[in-house]
Amino acid sequence: MVIVMNQNATGEQIKRIIGRVHQAGLRTHVVEGEFRTIIGIIGDKKTIMALAVEALEGVEKAVPISSSYKLVSRDFHPQSSIVDVSGVKIGGGSLVVMGGPCAVESREQLMEAAHIVKEGGAQFLRGGAYKPRTSPYAFQGLEEEGLIYLAEAREATGLKIVTEVTDVTAVDLVASYADMLQIGARNMQNFHLLKAVGRSGKPVLLKRGLSATIEEWLHAAEYIVNEGNYDVVLCERGIRTYEEYTRNTLDLSAVGALKHLSHLPVIVDPSHGTGKWHLVRSMSMAAVAAGADGLMIEVHPNPAEALSDGPQSLNPGNYMALMKDIIKLADFLNNEVR
Amino acid sequence: MVIVMNQNATGEQIKRIIGRVHQAGLRTHVVEGEFRTIIGIIGDKKTIMALAVEALEGVEKAVPISSSYKLVSRDFHPQSSIVDVSGVKIGGGSLVVMGGPCAVESREQLMEAAHIVKEGGAQFLRGGAYKPRTSPYAFQGLEEEGLIYLAEAREATGLKIVTEVTDVTAVDLVASYADMLQIGARNMQNFHLLKAVGRSGKPVLLKRGLSATIEEWLHAAEYIVNEGNYDVVLCERGIRTYEEYTRNTLDLSAVGALKHLSHLPVIVDPSHGTGKWHLVRSMSMAAVAAGADGLMIEVHPNPAEALSDGPQSLNPGNYMALMKDIIKLADFLNNEVR
Amino acid sequence: MVIVMNQNATGEQIKRIIGRVHQAGLRTHVVEGEFRTIIGIIGDKKTIMALAVEALEGVEKAVPISSSYKLVSRDFHPQSSIVDVSGVKIGGGSLVVMGGPCAVESREQLMEAAHIVKEGGAQFLRGGAYKPRTSPYAFQGLEEEGLIYLAEAREATGLKIVTEVTDVTAVDLVASYADMLQIGARNMQNFHLLKAVGRSGKPVLLKRGLSATIEEWLHAAEYIVNEGNYDVVLCERGIRTYEEYTRNTLDLSAVGALKHLSHLPVIVDPSHGTGKWHLVRSMSMAAVAAGADGLMIEVHPNPAEALSDGPQSLNPGNYMALMKDIIKLADFLNNEVR
Amino acid sequence: MVIVMNQNATGEQIKRIIGRVHQAGLRTHVVEGEFRTIIGIIGDKKTIMALAVEALEGVEKAVPISSSYKLVSRDFHPQSSIVDVSGVKIGGGSLVVMGGPCAVESREQLMEAAHIVKEGGAQFLRGGAYKPRTSPYAFQGLEEEGLIYLAEAREATGLKIVTEVTDVTAVDLVASYADMLQIGARNMQNFHLLKAVGRSGKPVLLKRGLSATIEEWLHAAEYIVNEGNYDVVLCERGIRTYEEYTRNTLDLSAVGALKHLSHLPVIVDPSHGTGKWHLVRSMSMAAVAAGADGLMIEVHPNPAEALSDGPQSLNPGNYMALMKDIIKLADFLNNEVR
Repeated sequence: MVIVMNQNATGEQIKRIIGRVHQAGLRTHVVEGEFRTIIGIIGDKKTIMALAVEALEGVEKAVPISSSYKLVSRDFHPQSSIVDVSGVKIGGGSLVVMGGPCAVESREQLMEAAHIVKEGGAQFLRGGAYKPRTSPYAFQGLEEEGLIYLAEAREATGLKIVTEVTDVTAVDLVASYADMLQIGARNMQNFHLLKAVGRSGKPVLLKRGLSATIEEWLHAAEYIVNEGNYDVVLCERGIRTYEEYTRNTLDLSAVGALKHLSHLPVIVDPSHGTGKWHLVRSMSMAAVAAGADGLMIEVHPNPAEALSDGPQSLNPGNYMALMKDIIKLADFLNNEVR
Repeated sequence: MVIVMNQNATGEQIKRIIGRVHQAGLRTHVVEGEFRTIIGIIGDKKTIMALAVEALEGVEKAVPISSSYKLVSRDFHPQSSIVDVSGVKIGGGSLVVMGGPCAVESREQLMEAAHIVKEGGAQFLRGGAYKPRTSPYAFQGLEEEGLIYLAEAREATGLKIVTEVTDVTAVDLVASYADMLQIGARNMQNFHLLKAVGRSGKPVLLKRGLSATIEEWLHAAEYIVNEGNYDVVLCERGIRTYEEYTRNTLDLSAVGALKHLSHLPVIVDPSHGTGKWHLVRSMSMAAVAAGADGLMIEVHPNPAEALSDGPQSLNPGNYMALMKDIIKLADFLNNEVR
Repeated sequence: MVIVMNQNATGEQIKRIIGRVHQAGLRTHVVEGEFRTIIGIIGDKKTIMALAVEALEGVEKAVPISSSYKLVSRDFHPQSSIVDVSGVKIGGGSLVVMGGPCAVESREQLMEAAHIVKEGGAQFLRGGAYKPRTSPYAFQGLEEEGLIYLAEAREATGLKIVTEVTDVTAVDLVASYADMLQIGARNMQNFHLLKAVGRSGKPVLLKRGLSATIEEWLHAAEYIVNEGNYDVVLCERGIRTYEEYTRNTLDLSAVGALKHLSHLPVIVDPSHGTGKWHLVRSMSMAAVAAGADGLMIEVHPNPAEALSDGPQSLNPGNYMALMKDIIKLADFLNNEVR
Repeated sequence: MVIVMNQNATGEQIKRIIGRVHQAGLRTHVVEGEFRTIIGIIGDKKTIMALAVEALEGVEKAVPISSSYKLVSRDFHPQSSIVDVSGVKIGGGSLVVMGGPCAVESREQLMEAAHIVKEGGAQFLRGGAYKPRTSPYAFQGLEEEGLIYLAEAREATGLKIVTEVTDVTAVDLVASYADMLQIGARNMQNFHLLKAVGRSGKPVLLKRGLSATIEEWLHAAEYIVNEGNYDVVLCERGIRTYEEYTRNTLDLSAVGALKHLSHLPVIVDPSHGTGKWHLVRSMSMAAVAAGADGLMIEVHPNPAEALSDGPQSLNPGNYMALMKDIIKLADFLNNEVR
């Protein structure tokens, strides 16, 4: 951390700050600039973070130099991680696809979706049994009934199950059915839930918060890993911006940024990321070309009948065509480019 | 809702949409424009919201006309609400102030803060016993110990207690100590928690989410009221923007907007809203002049020693001076202007 | 500036950077942290800004410590400036109001507006003769004809004229009619125009860009002052955010921030800032309470007939009522609080 | 446009609005909902846009149904356009690359860059002779001297020249040297400049504004085309968001969105879009896979010596490697997928 003093900070004020920093067991380097004095602080990240020096008199601002996440950082763990979910590996070069409806609506809908997803070549079935919805009057999910259908679909197709858990009290139940627990965007900073899935022993898919910075996202992952669970996959799903044409702005540069900063695998959800099915194809291709380890795509046997997020779901025909091209593209990139 | 068709939508596609809308028990009005056909949909809000017509072929977009919250809307309840918290009324013309430290750190710190807060003329003591923190390594709060200190401070000063609850499993415990439950920004769309505080029987202070629209915020309030709890107060605390000088951008226009759209009382938190103690004074005065029903202000006996958010906390001297002027301003506005 | 090296940066890379910094005539301080080396750079702001050290191998990032504006900064000029516009002083404690229609539409409309504005107690008449409009098909302004009407209105009422100039080639013409030149939000970074009004000898009202940071805004002001024109007034008019209820998000915390960082006067435009006439009153009161030196308010004799921005214009009755209260509030603040 | 009335709007108010709409030569459809009356307006886009009905009493809001751009819309011109720049075609399936330094710094630098750009297989040389810079103290470009060097580089390599014009008064001069005129992000809504390049007869590269919506961007293009110049290419270069890791957030979904809404070609600038050279490769690959018609990439013979934007420029080695892979990818997509 670097403390920038006011132009008219007194020697007394500077001394007081240095005293406090040393008291905390940290070292300082004082640099006198033309107009201002700057104090660099060196030592343990956690201790630095706990300082509230900005509140001291004479301080203009405090500039953090390095992030306080550690376990998820590439500095700490230079090799890219591979997360094994019931035998399917995420990360390490192959492309994983998670397909399925936004919400589990009925046994028939889910089974039909599962067979399509499987036929297209995906490895995971997605589908929400617990749906966090903006309005209390919108469909909130089938809850345990939905989980049972997901397990049946796994039985029937061999697909792995990834599904969202929205509350601490449901972690054990969801974990007893799913292969991978999803933390949704709205819960990315639900720290109790992060700790709970960290203790669950299940791999976790951590979606980016609606307006989370990359750094906050990695801190959220750090909460999970800090509980001893290293099986975390990050999922970019669009961020909130002023643009109104798309539901969110899909930040594909996050793929490269995360691979630079962290060792965790990264997948992309172009369905939520754009909110428009006709943009899912181009953004899926782009995500694969950007180096994503996988995709999460909404597929519905009949999007116009969907109880949730129909406008962003692919119909079976579009899904099949996309899967064919994505697989070709991934092969091309693996063989011809990398 | 208004459905806008593609320019080249067929009569068949239009018919199919109308059929589906009628099937849902809703009425339609078809308007043929120069280039496109537009279909207006009339009927029950909740039913309209459940339609996924955007996924149907031939549809360019669906434009919602009215919001789906109801119980919190001024349309539904034209009179401004007054929320009674253990005898202190929020809303209805008088100004309420909630002061105190970001986090409860120790009995001594809290007691000292409480006496200052009381002396300044505030009605509520704030202070977090459970702290949602970006990093798992930051101070996470004293939990029940903090609640006990808060209750002791109430005993000593007569101040009412407002404190954050961050998890469903802690609602009963927090409710047994606090006069008012706070839902923090990160939990504004933690729907399980909203329902739980809705059932708690305690008044609720609902902070705006970091990047929540006013509409989403009112929907979150609707979750609470929908459980039968009408004692909800909204708290503007700044939204996330590109601006870096302030921690958040305090959206004071939300005060007038909420009073236009809803009957619920609105207060403002300029401490989190700006992240800088030297902006708290001007934003407090502005909030009062904008018509806010109250303020939530961070005060710390010694901000530079704070374990959380020191840079945005007022010291006792600044707090006292501010309170004096705020009270004068509120009196002036009540007597001379309104 | 502080250069943060990669964890695995070599001694060679660090040496190369230090060499380059010294070559530029700057000094360095090297600090070795636990994981990374940090290099502080000291010397002339402009020289530091011209370094492209982030492109050198081994560099993780470069963190700027101080801004590169100077003439507009309070560090450089601690006293608050007062800008004299044809005898009316902006800054220094009194409140200035600039009222009038968004666009000059006709002699009649403008004269009617001017008399209302004058009667309410404002000092300036605003009105656009050149209108930057999103669509090429929207009303683009009366151009010189509009300027003539503005001058006539000044003659008739004694109000000073502030009007927007949108192009370098029109600066002389507009300056020959107006008392104060306005740079609109879309031109805040039209650097040719900034230099031209800097050379015009006329006071300048510089509106904040649609998504300009406070720092970029001060840099834009620096362009004007750097041409020798110190008569610059800043005008907050809302920034672009994700919120859709208001046209922009009025950032009232910018008032206090600018007064902390700069010596220039600051006014607020709640009409563009909210886009809704029913929010103008509360945001005007808030701006005055926040310490703004003035307001720019849209008033139209008949908002529903306005060729531009009718929805955000006050009608004569609302304007009169607001002016009465604003003046009272300013008096109260001057006499009872400050 | 759809006008949504207040719940308590009177019959008188509704009548008044309908009268005014009819007076403007437009038709209305009135729909009475459960709580509110809704008035649909049909007729000429430009006339509708000029209405200020939101300012009328009883109106809650006005919801636009269709955009007011026309000449650039795919509705109006269903075939994708191909823009011919001195014999190089942009659009229509082949991939165009524009490479070069951010700023022209010297003859040597530019020539060296041009040969590298050519060798890699690009068709255009980019390089700024006029640089819009946030600070007045940053390097502002070589102006005409830079244009002369660009023309020399064209002579030497056969590359086409694309360069930014920042002011109306310089359009003729820049047009006399360049093959294509670039409008930079800060000038996307400099409407005088848009009209001037529209009249210049030269193809125009229109960059997206820092916080422009897709709709505003298409309106800016409409300004150019409305002057009779159909040779417009759009360039996505990142938008301003709250994320701080990247300089901007590159919005690759804009590629698909623009191709849906408009017939104009679209290219992508991953250098400005990310601000970090190490993200340029992945975002270039992604842009091509997303269906962009081309790329604009910053290449500098020695990024660490660059006077502008060094941190986001590729060095020759990285550029060559990227070009090889991009060309392969484009071939693969053309032959195997589309």
